[in-house]
Amino acid sequence: MRRFHKTLKKTNLLSKKKKKIGLPPGTLIYTGEKPKIPTKIKIIDYNEENYSFIEEFPSKKNLQEIEKNYIRWVEIAGLTEIEKIEEIGNQFKIHPLVLEDILNPDQRPKFEDYGNYIFIVLNKLLWDESKEIFESEQISLILGENYVISFSELESDTFKPIFERIRAARGKIRSMKADYLAYALIDVIIDNYFLILETIGELIDNLEDKVIKNPEPEVMQSIYRLKRFSIDIRKSIWPLRQVINNLQREQTNLISDELHIYLKDISDHIYRISDQLENYRDIIFGMLDMYLSSVSNKMNDIMKVLTIISTVFIPLSFLAGFYGMNFINMPELSNPIAYPMLILVMLILAIAMILFFRRKKWI
Amino acid sequence: MRRFHKTLKKTNLLSKKKKKIGLPPGTLIYTGEKPKIPTKIKIIDYNEENYSFIEEFPSKKNLQEIEKNYIRWVEIAGLTEIEKIEEIGNQFKIHPLVLEDILNPDQRPKFEDYGNYIFIVLNKLLWDESKEIFESEQISLILGENYVISFSELESDTFKPIFERIRAARGKIRSMKADYLAYALIDVIIDNYFLILETIGELIDNLEDKVIKNPEPEVMQSIYRLKRFSIDIRKSIWPLRQVINNLQREQTNLISDELHIYLKDISDHIYRISDQLENYRDIIFGMLDMYLSSVSNKMNDIMKVLTIISTVFIPLSFLAGFYGMNFINMPELSNPIAYPMLILVMLILAIAMILFFRRKKWI
Amino acid sequence: MRRFHKTLKKTNLLSKKKKKIGLPPGTLIYTGEKPKIPTKIKIIDYNEENYSFIEEFPSKKNLQEIEKNYIRWVEIAGLTEIEKIEEIGNQFKIHPLVLEDILNPDQRPKFEDYGNYIFIVLNKLLWDESKEIFESEQISLILGENYVISFSELESDTFKPIFERIRAARGKIRSMKADYLAYALIDVIIDNYFLILETIGELIDNLEDKVIKNPEPEVMQSIYRLKRFSIDIRKSIWPLRQVINNLQREQTNLISDELHIYLKDISDHIYRISDQLENYRDIIFGMLDMYLSSVSNKMNDIMKVLTIISTVFIPLSFLAGFYGMNFINMPELSNPIAYPMLILVMLILAIAMILFFRRKKWI
Amino acid sequence: MRRFHKTLKKTNLLSKKKKKIGLPPGTLIYTGEKPKIPTKIKIIDYNEENYSFIEEFPSKKNLQEIEKNYIRWVEIAGLTEIEKIEEIGNQFKIHPLVLEDILNPDQRPKFEDYGNYIFIVLNKLLWDESKEIFESEQISLILGENYVISFSELESDTFKPIFERIRAARGKIRSMKADYLAYALIDVIIDNYFLILETIGELIDNLEDKVIKNPEPEVMQSIYRLKRFSIDIRKSIWPLRQVINNLQREQTNLISDELHIYLKDISDHIYRISDQLENYRDIIFGMLDMYLSSVSNKMNDIMKVLTIISTVFIPLSFLAGFYGMNFINMPELSNPIAYPMLILVMLILAIAMILFFRRKKWI
Amino acid sequence: MRRFHKTLKKTNLLSKKKKKIGLPPGTLIYTGEKPKIPTKIKIIDYNEENYSFIEEFPSKKNLQEIEKNYIRWVEIAGLTEIEKIEEIGNQFKIHPLVLEDILNPDQRPKFEDYGNYIFIVLNKLLWDESKEIFESEQISLILGENYVISFSELESDTFKPIFERIRAARGKIRSMKADYLAYALIDVIIDNYFLILETIGELIDNLEDKVIKNPEPEVMQSIYRLKRFSIDIRKSIWPLRQVINNLQREQTNLISDELHIYLKDISDHIYRISDQLENYRDIIFGMLDMYLSSVSNKMNDIMKVLTIISTVFIPLSFLAGFYGMNFINMPELSNPIAYPMLILVMLILAIAMILFFRRKKWI
Repeated sequence: MRRFHKTLKKTNLLSKKKKKIGLPPGTLIYTGEKPKIPTKIKIIDYNEENYSFIEEFPSKKNLQEIEKNYIRWVEIAGLTEIEKIEEIGNQFKIHPLVLEDILNPDQRPKFEDYGNYIFIVLNKLLWDESKEIFESEQISLILGENYVISFSELESDTFKPIFERIRAARGKIRSMKADYLAYALIDVIIDNYFLILETIGELIDNLEDKVIKNPEPEVMQSIYRLKRFSIDIRKSIWPLRQVINNLQREQTNLISDELHIYLKDISDHIYRISDQLENYRDIIFGMLDMYLSSVSNKMNDIMKVLTIISTVFIPLSFLAGFYGMNFINMPELSNPIAYPMLILVMLILAIAMILFFRRKKWI
Repeated sequence: MRRFHKTLKKTNLLSKKKKKIGLPPGTLIYTGEKPKIPTKIKIIDYNEENYSFIEEFPSKKNLQEIEKNYIRWVEIAGLTEIEKIEEIGNQFKIHPLVLEDILNPDQRPKFEDYGNYIFIVLNKLLWDESKEIFESEQISLILGENYVISFSELESDTFKPIFERIRAARGKIRSMKADYLAYALIDVIIDNYFLILETIGELIDNLEDKVIKNPEPEVMQSIYRLKRFSIDIRKSIWPLRQVINNLQREQTNLISDELHIYLKDISDHIYRISDQLENYRDIIFGMLDMYLSSVSNKMNDIMKVLTIISTVFIPLSFLAGFYGMNFINMPELSNPIAYPMLILVMLILAIAMILFFRRKKWI
Repeated sequence: MRRFHKTLKKTNLLSKKKKKIGLPPGTLIYTGEKPKIPTKIKIIDYNEENYSFIEEFPSKKNLQEIEKNYIRWVEIAGLTEIEKIEEIGNQFKIHPLVLEDILNPDQRPKFEDYGNYIFIVLNKLLWDESKEIFESEQISLILGENYVISFSELESDTFKPIFERIRAARGKIRSMKADYLAYALIDVIIDNYFLILETIGELIDNLEDKVIKNPEPEVMQSIYRLKRFSIDIRKSIWPLRQVINNLQREQTNLISDELHIYLKDISDHIYRISDQLENYRDIIFGMLDMYLSSVSNKMNDIMKVLTIISTVFIPLSFLAGFYGMNFINMPELSNPIAYPMLILVMLILAIAMILFFRRKKWI
Repeated sequence: MRRFHKTLKKTNLLSKKKKKIGLPPGTLIYTGEKPKIPTKIKIIDYNEENYSFIEEFPSKKNLQEIEKNYIRWVEIAGLTEIEKIEEIGNQFKIHPLVLEDILNPDQRPKFEDYGNYIFIVLNKLLWDESKEIFESEQISLILGENYVISFSELESDTFKPIFERIRAARGKIRSMKADYLAYALIDVIIDNYFLILETIGELIDNLEDKVIKNPEPEVMQSIYRLKRFSIDIRKSIWPLRQVINNLQREQTNLISDELHIYLKDISDHIYRISDQLENYRDIIFGMLDMYLSSVSNKMNDIMKVLTIISTVFIPLSFLAGFYGMNFINMPELSNPIAYPMLILVMLILAIAMILFFRRKKWI
Repeated sequence: MRRFHKTLKKTNLLSKKKKKIGLPPGTLIYTGEKPKIPTKIKIIDYNEENYSFIEEFPSKKNLQEIEKNYIRWVEIAGLTEIEKIEEIGNQFKIHPLVLEDILNPDQRPKFEDYGNYIFIVLNKLLWDESKEIFESEQISLILGENYVISFSELESDTFKPIFERIRAARGKIRSMKADYLAYALIDVIIDNYFLILETIGELIDNLEDKVIKNPEPEVMQSIYRLKRFSIDIRKSIWPLRQVINNLQREQTNLISDELHIYLKDISDHIYRISDQLENYRDIIFGMLDMYLSSVSNKMNDIMKVLTIISTVFIPLSFLAGFYGMNFINMPELSNPIAYPMLILVMLILAIAMILFFRRKKWI
């Protein structure tokens, strides 16, 4: 029980950190709870013909100076080295409040247009098999005219397929603008939710089995956990709908008309994800009812059988007690056939009661 | 129990396939779970006077070259031969994302205007009597100026009545444009939901009988299944409302003014279907309450009777035990009328208790 | 029990008829389930001064030829003689889809503007005292420039007061246009819902009595029925709100400005009706809670009393059993005051337990 | 119990009167259920300098003839003398449908602009301490250019403070227009709801005490009553929000710009009232859960104690019965220390069981 | 129990004060329930270069006369000295209804534009550790062109960080206008809600532990309290969303364009707060289900064990009683191996029953 409850507590995705109350807005501190990894950078420059790739902070070059016709993708992983983040922020002239949001994970997914760049916050969910919990990681994107900056809290392979697509010039990513790159990154993160849904689907299937066959108290706790998972995941997904809707409606020349068909596709995925999640919620609530019903059925079955056993024996015990009385004047006691007769009566009584209960469909 | 649970699992219409995460959008793979049947084609050309019909892939002819004044209906069943689908897509210049949506069933019903054609996704539901589950099949329609392409996952008779109407020139289908053909196809699929509602209605009626007369644990599971069915079906129907609303509001010359009255009729049907479904949901939830109440009533009845039997005998057993004591000085024991007196007292006591319980309306 | 359940089934207002799937839209078949009565017609022509009344189908005259300054009300009851309905439809140039809707009851209340006439569908509810169910009848109205056609499934007195008002020239109906006549007909049908609400109110009051005093399983079923009634009635009333709102907003010269104040009055009534219905729903759901609580209170009372009886006697029985043991060396047995002492102890024990239970407020 | 249920029924604010179905709209009958008091009138004329007051129906004078620069307030209490109401209606040229609404209480609060006057319906709630129910009284206001007419079903002191303010020229009422007078009257009625909320708050507090300490069946009924109260009161308050919103938005020269700030204040009050009411509803629903939980806790406590008593004695009784057997060959029976040993065993057994139950935290 | 209930009552944030019904609007009385502290004032004047600070009421100077290029912040704590508040109101020409709202706490958070100043009402929540309740304090802000007036019911350190920032010229507060000062004050109050959420989060975590391990009746009451807390806090937060939205949309030159990005940031915080609160509500409701399930599980475990003990002994007791009968003709009694045989039978019976119960997974 102990172990379960420990994980139960850890499933709380809700941050508990002390807010930096009273500090001037724009003060930069990393408030996330991820392991403190050094901040890594990858700089990928590409156009339809060429492609280059550096994996270190350029010492003097200003990152915003991008060669003509090139798209630059700055991929940053690990948010602990504040001065590096700040330096990048300065070079790209990013508003301090944006940097603050990047460094303070636990933001709602959101989309903000700052004129010469667009700021997008997304959450990536991850199922941690060993701890049996969902982990949430904040991914921030900044989309400028010819660059995209991506900030992740952790180093991971999430964006590797995009990187490979650029290197191998697969699909049309090399022939498109920066907005398509941003789209591709968002697409990967959102597709990730399908995996999460799958995991929940499997957790539900496993639980369903147990709810019907073996409704133990642990099942109730698992249902409760699933409910909390669905609450937490919903918190990530619902604002996403608005993010993509705003992206689609936004009057900005950072997003080309050509991209709208792709945004529509993403929007479609998000709606499927949130539909599915709502269905899962309904199913989880239904499981709760079924669990409670299963428990009470099982309990009823036990009580019924036990009560019936008692009920059959109580009249018999009375008879036994009756003829255990010590009155002088009890003629039956001295009658030699009284004893076998009583045994007969007892048998008949017991059988009659069992038949009666059976006819009533009680057993 | 085993068998039931197996079907319980299969009722999960929600797809569990691995998403093609990271692949460039537009990659074509059939991800449905329907039996892999070869892709069949029917090409029906008609106008008010003439009508022709081919049932094979034309070898060289481009399908989009349609004779003047003719409407072409290309009916495709079975989505496993990707290259054929792709060929048709190329001939009609269909966007790769559309082809991807056609090949990946489990889409939400949707409507998208691509300028020179309209893309519509619908779900057809089917009650599989033998397995006692609902199967879902995705039907995709592409409506161009003078053609309609329909894609079904399975070969079925769904569109046969339309085909017959065209051949026999029944109704006004032959004198109308391609948009009327698309309307007729949508109408058939939506009318299909009425059958589904009927099936649910019958399932509800059967369950209602059982809930009142015989509230066994299986009934609870059936209610749970019905609930999941209603959740799954709702997922198909709700987005349909928006599809038809968008079709009605769309500013496109692919849909003639004349058609609006027919779209309104469809819209009307969808609202009736979703109203009905909501009512069924309310009824199913009500049945759950009634089931729980029935179970607890039945249990209460049993416990009541059994407890009353025990209660009547317990004082009698005490009396019997009392006169079974071995004290020397128990004057009653040697009194010859004590024994019949005690029997009398016991009878009176038992009758008094039963009368008391009856007056209290406990039995 | 049987009888109740039979009526329970019949209360299902939801149609179960097979839809005419695949037939060309506009095919005319009466799909209602009302007794097949012959189609009757009444033709009332009136203006401020004059009034005439025919009760048979005019043989040659075209019904749409109405004398100048006259309003014509064509009242049709019984929808089984399709050819008559079709003839009227042709004379007034009514769209086949409209005729189809008239003949297929189970439509949602709706309002459709066809340019030179307005089509309105309403449901009239009727409480059938003998069967204890609500019956639904579809009333369709067609409002043209100078005529109103009303179609009812059954012959009834619903519209008689309007007829009397026209004949007796009571109120201002004779001095108003056709739109006022349509308004008067709608008003009668909507006022009818107040009677339905009253009936539900009475059913609720009766049930409330029983729920508190006599919470039997039948009460649960009645609550369930009331719930289904409220679901079904709601289905009729909710779309009505939109019908009247659309009527008010509609830009049509078939409805004069003068009429808007009357439509507002109707709209007001509908809102009162649906408010009331929602309140009733809330009350019914509250009754369910109270019923369940009453049942469990009653059960608890029984179990408590019975368990207390057992509990008082169990220690006494033990004592009796104890002194029924056959050990040689039991000095109490031969002590002459042991027996009366034991009786005293038993009495004290019993009284002490009862006092203890009473102090704990258990009895 | 009887007494309670009687009041339970009376709490039904919902009208049960037969609607005047079929009568021409505008027919005047008082359909309220208030005691039939004679219709009283007060006519107050005032401007910044002067003030006059009559308390009888003027015989010949037309009430609409108001001296220049004067505001007239006609206060009417008691709606049984139809002809007087009708006379006033005629003098002020009020639409018959308005008079009908005034005379048929049980209207939803509403606001209607008739061009040269505005018609407002409000409900005043009153807590009847003796009957322990809420009474509802309809207050109708007509606001013209320089007059306000108020209709109350009962004679009461509700408007007395306003009257005093006019007489004593307190506040700015004498220097404002008729719209300010209407505002003041509405303000008094709405402030009245705060008293109602207070009463509900006290009822809730009292119940909360009982729910925790003494969860008797009567508490359940009181919760049910509170729920019905909150349903009924909500019915009065919710439409009020729209009434005031419409008043604020209305393009009418009957309401001066200056008044908007006051309407905003009222709107604010209404929102606070309805927020509060919603909170109370949530609290009442929470109390229901707590009541059910308290009842079941109490029951569980009883059953637990009683069952434990039985369980402790059952093995002891078995032992007693065992040594009450009459076998010849029972060596223990003749062993002189067997009896004290058995007593010891029994004591140890009883104590062990009690310790076991205590360790398990069952007692 | 007593102590708990007392605090339960105090948690009722809802005011119970008698409304000043009938008094002219604008009458000034402090109706809050906070301790009556004297009204303190702080006047801070600043611009980019200079800064001054007075902590007493200026005797003759009019507070609205502010030096050019200076921003004035008038901080008022304690609302009991009405005449001082009134004097400030007069000097800044504040509408009497605004002053009334400032003095009557228990307002909903709101935003009102009075042309030359903006009036904002906020609630600050405070967790009182000792009483274990949330206290609510109303903070009112008035934002003019070059001044901000803040009114607090209590003296506290809430605004101290802002004060320090102005004095130390930290951040950009000294270089911004009055609107930025108002923003900073609002920001502090809203950040405060994160602390409140944290407290609730901890209360939930503590309860979760208890719900699973030790589901005592007190836990139910704590859940009920948490529910009431969440209802009360929600009442403060929900209207906040609208306040900030209105601030953002408002067409006023009191708020510069530059500030919108900051308002967006606040809006973001509020949404995160209310999302979180909704999640907490869902979790609290889930805990209720789990508590009820835990209680019933625990009860079931007890009843099961006890009933099984009884059930095992009842047949044994019957056998014992059986051979305690006094019939003459009971051959078993005189058979020397009968006694050990019976003991064997009893042992087998008991073991068989226990094995049977175990196989059925009942124990």
